[in-house]
Amino acid sequence: MTQLESARKGIITEEMRSAARKEGADPEFIRKSIEEGVVVINKNRLHRSIDGLAVGRGLKTKVNANIGSSQDRVDIEEELTKLRVAIEAGADAVMDLSTGGDVNAIRRAVLKESTVAIGTVPIYQAAHDARKRGKSFVELSADEMFDSIECQASDGVDFITVHCGVTRNSVEKVRKQGRIMGIVSRGGALTAEWMKFNKKENPLFEEYPRLLKIAKKYDMVLSLGDGLRPGCLADATDRGQIEELIILGELAMRAFDEGVQVMIEGPGHVPLDQIEANILLQKRLCNNAPFYVLGPLVTDIAPGYDHITSAIGGAIAASAGADFLCYVTPSEHLRLPTVEDVREGVMAARIAAHAGDIAKKTRGAMEADITLAKARKRLDWDEQIRLSIDPVRARRVREASPPEDESVCTMCGSLCAIKITAEAEH
Amino acid sequence: MTQLESARKGIITEEMRSAARKEGADPEFIRKSIEEGVVVINKNRLHRSIDGLAVGRGLKTKVNANIGSSQDRVDIEEELTKLRVAIEAGADAVMDLSTGGDVNAIRRAVLKESTVAIGTVPIYQAAHDARKRGKSFVELSADEMFDSIECQASDGVDFITVHCGVTRNSVEKVRKQGRIMGIVSRGGALTAEWMKFNKKENPLFEEYPRLLKIAKKYDMVLSLGDGLRPGCLADATDRGQIEELIILGELAMRAFDEGVQVMIEGPGHVPLDQIEANILLQKRLCNNAPFYVLGPLVTDIAPGYDHITSAIGGAIAASAGADFLCYVTPSEHLRLPTVEDVREGVMAARIAAHAGDIAKKTRGAMEADITLAKARKRLDWDEQIRLSIDPVRARRVREASPPEDESVCTMCGSLCAIKITAEAEH
Repeated sequence: MTQLESARKGIITEEMRSAARKEGADPEFIRKSIEEGVVVINKNRLHRSIDGLAVGRGLKTKVNANIGSSQDRVDIEEELTKLRVAIEAGADAVMDLSTGGDVNAIRRAVLKESTVAIGTVPIYQAAHDARKRGKSFVELSADEMFDSIECQASDGVDFITVHCGVTRNSVEKVRKQGRIMGIVSRGGALTAEWMKFNKKENPLFEEYPRLLKIAKKYDMVLSLGDGLRPGCLADATDRGQIEELIILGELAMRAFDEGVQVMIEGPGHVPLDQIEANILLQKRLCNNAPFYVLGPLVTDIAPGYDHITSAIGGAIAASAGADFLCYVTPSEHLRLPTVEDVREGVMAARIAAHAGDIAKKTRGAMEADITLAKARKRLDWDEQIRLSIDPVRARRVREASPPEDESVCTMCGSLCAIKITAEAEH
Repeated sequence: MTQLESARKGIITEEMRSAARKEGADPEFIRKSIEEGVVVINKNRLHRSIDGLAVGRGLKTKVNANIGSSQDRVDIEEELTKLRVAIEAGADAVMDLSTGGDVNAIRRAVLKESTVAIGTVPIYQAAHDARKRGKSFVELSADEMFDSIECQASDGVDFITVHCGVTRNSVEKVRKQGRIMGIVSRGGALTAEWMKFNKKENPLFEEYPRLLKIAKKYDMVLSLGDGLRPGCLADATDRGQIEELIILGELAMRAFDEGVQVMIEGPGHVPLDQIEANILLQKRLCNNAPFYVLGPLVTDIAPGYDHITSAIGGAIAASAGADFLCYVTPSEHLRLPTVEDVREGVMAARIAAHAGDIAKKTRGAMEADITLAKARKRLDWDEQIRLSIDPVRARRVREASPPEDESVCTMCGSLCAIKITAEAEH
């Protein structure tokens, strides 16, 4: 049985119990949320080294880090280092998006070593394999696409992005309205190219029951990808994007009916004032299925700082109800991220998730800030640093500039407002 | 005449013309906005090396960088380097908050070298001078406080923070409701301590006409400080903070009546979901006077990353109508910022300001993103980098990881969605 099927039978699984413990919630609350389709537990039944990752309404906003080789950069050791650094930095999940070298070997090594849920985009592997065999992606058969999905599922992947909503209809909507950037998701672009070349509908849409069967067998969560997400602010919230979201809403319902857990993926590049509407639309069109967003980036003009542009959008998205944030690193739009970029990206996304959690009153979120504020008030530096999101960095910054009076810092010295106030209070 | 007095007489000054050029606006629009008190031009009539900085409704959101020595760190050359770096990075104004060493010499050097508007907090100098003479701040006379203000005005400072709203009444409101962090603004804490020790009302409130007289003489903008701003999320939007804001609204009106230009300062540490309400309150209570906010920081738990926590809050604040963002650096809460921190802080605040400008439809904001998106679509890397907010960094990141195929980047290689889409379109 999948977690969803168990929940429907009133069974509280070990994974639900574990999620309840981590969230400080009641196990029955988790079960009921899964039954309603507003929470999923990411855990392939073959992936035994993890507890499972619960994502959805009423839970802490989670953070995913993308890692993986590319055609230009293949180094399995470096990718495993990224995995470790992402987990150390507090990522709740990691997606291995490898498209270079021995991608099977990388994925299996990542799955084996990881203590967090692992996601993939099987179509990348299909594209990679085709290229290795000297074929173009458009020459792949539907069977070959489903084989790559089954292969990854049987390896123990916990969730996969599938671009089922890139259909003749939704792609036509993009074309008709017109866009500056066109299709910018790799999976979306590959799928659209395949459809155009073969003059056929997207196999992942047309043969959706086949996909559901694989997902159900492994209890692998389907993350219904937004292949038509906007690639710049000016393209946001257009007819193509929303048409795809409507399709994903229907596909989510079909998965739900079959006992398969689903999440919905969302944009991308979105002006700040459109983020809330995007979350509302997703929740309404997809029956409150968990929403997994990339960014959103609130400006296009800051390559080199897209961890910040996406932290702004991610915080607003989380506060409005997004459940899962995919990080964006400072390297986005410029290069494959380095290990240090991975760390920066996870930290920025965690800050966004936490700020959103405070705003949407997630269990326990505000308490963390109150506890740190109390330590700050006491000028208890060790405790302030221990309670901070990245104690190693906080300590390093402070110790690089030691104050003469250890009770304060070099910003204010004896003009420390907290110290002045404390003295005035006595 | 001050800019406000000129505006009232229907005169379009050279400073208004210059502001109009920079904003792509009509000079008459600038004049009328100043007449209404919704825009100010920061330019002391003695500060001849600058054009003046227009701040307010309908204009681009501006960014300020704080620099200055502290008791623990005095290096005039380093502070001048920070000034240069802040300006290079795109700061619209710099506040010299020096409290260590020869603060008069530092301020004068900063004023002389700067091409942007300079602000200060004169009470810091008063406190510093008192300490140098072996006196406590509480022993200063009202005359000595006003003397430090006059001294800085006559040096050519363009805007000053004055904590006139820290009164017996507002401080009592803070005490009665209770706070975790108490008073965290240095100026607020010093003023409250002075009032308590001397059992007197705040001289800057009681002798406000004296302050107006100085400001008017030099056409120096009064930035009415929020001495009672919250120091942690849990203290945000409390009775003390709002009482002070009401007082500032009344003081702003009195300044306006006297022909003195005013801005209002705002918090601080504010949960994401309270930011919009804070902006609305300020605009309503202060007759739409320009709003200058510090952050706001949307979580307390991220020392070392407060440029990001404040970029999140600043973007939301700007989108809701804040006019001027004071940057926060990664060193906030930990140490005096370094030169590199200054650069990071300015960039993060500029991203926030721009994201806010897009949301509130500021003239020209969205065009920047559209132009860059078009270059990205063409895979025109030189142009993409040239148009980005920090071309030096964008180029460095890209060049650190050169792709085999120069038309793409090492993230996707031949799986570049933009390239695939372009090929499919042909």
